[in-house]
Amino acid sequence: MMTNMETIVALAKHRGFVFPGSEIYGGLANTWDYGPLGIELKNNVKKAWWQKFIQQSPYNVGLDAAILMNPKTWEASGHLSNFNDPMIDNKDSKIRYRADKLIEDYMHDVEGDEHFIADGMSFDEMKQFIDDKGIVCAESGTANWTDIRQFNLMFKTFQGVTENSTNEIFLRPETAQGIFVNYKNVQRSMRKKLPFGIGQIGKSFRNEITPGNFTFRTREFEQMELEFFCKPGTEIEWQNYWKDFAANWLKTLGIKEENTKLRDHDEDELSHYSNATTDIEYKFPFGWGELWGIASRTDFDLRKHMEHSGDDFTYHDPETNEKYLPYVIEPSLGADRVTLAFLCDAYTEEQLEGDDTRTVMRFHPALAPYKAAILPLSKKLSQDALKVFEELSADFNIDFDESQSIGKRYRRQDEIGTPFCITFDFDSLEDNQVTVRDRDTMEQIRMPISEVKNFLNEKIKF
Amino acid sequence: MMTNMETIVALAKHRGFVFPGSEIYGGLANTWDYGPLGIELKNNVKKAWWQKFIQQSPYNVGLDAAILMNPKTWEASGHLSNFNDPMIDNKDSKIRYRADKLIEDYMHDVEGDEHFIADGMSFDEMKQFIDDKGIVCAESGTANWTDIRQFNLMFKTFQGVTENSTNEIFLRPETAQGIFVNYKNVQRSMRKKLPFGIGQIGKSFRNEITPGNFTFRTREFEQMELEFFCKPGTEIEWQNYWKDFAANWLKTLGIKEENTKLRDHDEDELSHYSNATTDIEYKFPFGWGELWGIASRTDFDLRKHMEHSGDDFTYHDPETNEKYLPYVIEPSLGADRVTLAFLCDAYTEEQLEGDDTRTVMRFHPALAPYKAAILPLSKKLSQDALKVFEELSADFNIDFDESQSIGKRYRRQDEIGTPFCITFDFDSLEDNQVTVRDRDTMEQIRMPISEVKNFLNEKIKF
Repeated sequence: MMTNMETIVALAKHRGFVFPGSEIYGGLANTWDYGPLGIELKNNVKKAWWQKFIQQSPYNVGLDAAILMNPKTWEASGHLSNFNDPMIDNKDSKIRYRADKLIEDYMHDVEGDEHFIADGMSFDEMKQFIDDKGIVCAESGTANWTDIRQFNLMFKTFQGVTENSTNEIFLRPETAQGIFVNYKNVQRSMRKKLPFGIGQIGKSFRNEITPGNFTFRTREFEQMELEFFCKPGTEIEWQNYWKDFAANWLKTLGIKEENTKLRDHDEDELSHYSNATTDIEYKFPFGWGELWGIASRTDFDLRKHMEHSGDDFTYHDPETNEKYLPYVIEPSLGADRVTLAFLCDAYTEEQLEGDDTRTVMRFHPALAPYKAAILPLSKKLSQDALKVFEELSADFNIDFDESQSIGKRYRRQDEIGTPFCITFDFDSLEDNQVTVRDRDTMEQIRMPISEVKNFLNEKIKF
Repeated sequence: MMTNMETIVALAKHRGFVFPGSEIYGGLANTWDYGPLGIELKNNVKKAWWQKFIQQSPYNVGLDAAILMNPKTWEASGHLSNFNDPMIDNKDSKIRYRADKLIEDYMHDVEGDEHFIADGMSFDEMKQFIDDKGIVCAESGTANWTDIRQFNLMFKTFQGVTENSTNEIFLRPETAQGIFVNYKNVQRSMRKKLPFGIGQIGKSFRNEITPGNFTFRTREFEQMELEFFCKPGTEIEWQNYWKDFAANWLKTLGIKEENTKLRDHDEDELSHYSNATTDIEYKFPFGWGELWGIASRTDFDLRKHMEHSGDDFTYHDPETNEKYLPYVIEPSLGADRVTLAFLCDAYTEEQLEGDDTRTVMRFHPALAPYKAAILPLSKKLSQDALKVFEELSADFNIDFDESQSIGKRYRRQDEIGTPFCITFDFDSLEDNQVTVRDRDTMEQIRMPISEVKNFLNEKIKF
């Protein structure tokens, strides 16, 4: 069952997943703050990525480069000259649009061509297209447009005491370049041989013209990127490997298969440096959106940095004695987007017996903010139940909830996605057992307190 | 034994803990990138903080607010008008100094007054002091100074398409305000009663005039902050509680007690809103430096935000039926600083039998980048040893090292602080046992492979 975004946004605020950023001051564009449950969920997503892509991988290691980088990085990567959005204003409404999105929205919504992509069009082609189709502004209803102009998406700031161009630096628009500039330091210090990868989780910033759709497109966002270096000629094989690996990661964490699809870029859509790119898309309540791009980037980045820095990045292959620049596969995932996907995917409304209904967030136990909630059946049992909390919270994030009736507490835990409710009753004092209720089946089993830890450990595996 | 910073910086680069930021482009001021081992160490530090301050705490919950906030936040907090450093230039050398640091360095190094603090002085007092003492520039040797001017430490940027003052926003200079503006959302959604705390880990940015001392003072840095809300009148009791809690956290993670000290701010040094502040300082190779500030901030922040936003933050005490603004205790820890402290503290050079020496990073196992390294004794054993890696790496970050002699591998693992080396030999194929070598004692014990997981789990407890 697919729900609408309003329901998700409302639940997220009400239950402490996501709050509007700077809300008491009327917010700030489309910024969002993760509340107590949201940050546990997002941290679990990040941990799950790190566990599979770094920790358990025999190939990959981690990195954490600074957000502020030497501006020559962006000269080399092409971001200074090419990282632009096409912007167009309606002269009557004064509303600013991204020209490519204006075209795509028109084609999707008005002409019903769901797969139309404006990405490969030049500015002139876009303007011509808008004129030909007579696309109008939703607000003014007119086609009174300005020309299309370039708008660089990098946030600019100044380092040091004076504001002049020599002190101008940028907030990184992607974590990837922090990996490329460290390629040699990592390869050498970790004595890595090809193929190997470097992964990183971190914030990036893009001055989007039209952020929106809750946490899907925000100006400040977090990425989980892997740059995987391999021998030229093996890149398509590795692109397939990481495509499968990524899809499998989503699947083992319980994302519904009908809500995801893999979409290969066709020739027109490919970036000039890429010889193959696949997007994993998710069916959000507002439509299909990109979660993960798995791009084969050839040696574009390393070559550019080699040219601009004068450093030598060629790899000496100890097996074949060849020298070459490694090719790169980049699986790049938005941490906020995939967290939003897990939120949407988990949302379920259930009809129970009679007129009763319940809202259940069916998170995989590995991702659930709380792995379990300890519920003392009576306030008289609080002190003893607290001991169970203390024991388990060394290993898991556990809630302790002693207010309201047990039924209301179950409903609340269902709504925040806690997979197990552990009821501590008067018998527990005697038999050292507790009742464990399963969120999804609502079945209850009696279990020795000493076995709960192993029980939870088994359940959070993925 | 105390070592010098050069040794730490060199080891950090060589072994993949910390690399100079944007190094291939000549760096960027004092920015640093965490390498594969550095980010594991830092992530372990952050996890250890979250585990004790959030997960296991019956009082506290987490939060993750955005770096970009509505600028009214900084008006309310006072950062727009007051978050300035006093800057002074030497007219001959053109070198810029922080006036307070210029004075303190002079008093510490020339007059030998180690405890002199210039923090409370006005601009005029500082200028007078510099003139009276005849303090000179280290480069030019002259006392030809400009006046002292204010320099706001917030990084400024522009959101949206045009650069004008209405689009001016700031990179947050502290995570704390992200907590205060969310106070009510958190309290309500989590149904919290006083006392309770909200903790957050995240990046902050300060345009420091003189960053330096490796990762100790950088313009981009990460904080681990807790804002603990309590009833007015109980704040000193809670300040003591969190002071002890913080000191104990460092101690259980193995920081040498002789390298830390608690220092209470005296009247002159206290911020105008604080009625008690204690710093935990660490003895870095370059001198004592602040790690952790535990400040009692009264109701200053909530009151300011209440005034500026018009929202009502008063708390209705269900026990006494009183209404009041909560008081706040803020234990604020630098994630990069404390990671640097753990690096310095762990560094040991040992004289072994004969002329042999070894470098050992004596990290607590909870913090060590790798919990263990699997060392197959022969390449022929790689495939079988890899199975042990695969089994353990589901739960721990594990190294797999099959190059060079076993002795060289031990030295390398010592130098990166791996607490246990697990040697897989030909007998292992028969008896399913491995030899586990302790990093610190160098003692070796034989152990069934099936017991290693529990063994490591016990060792990483803290």
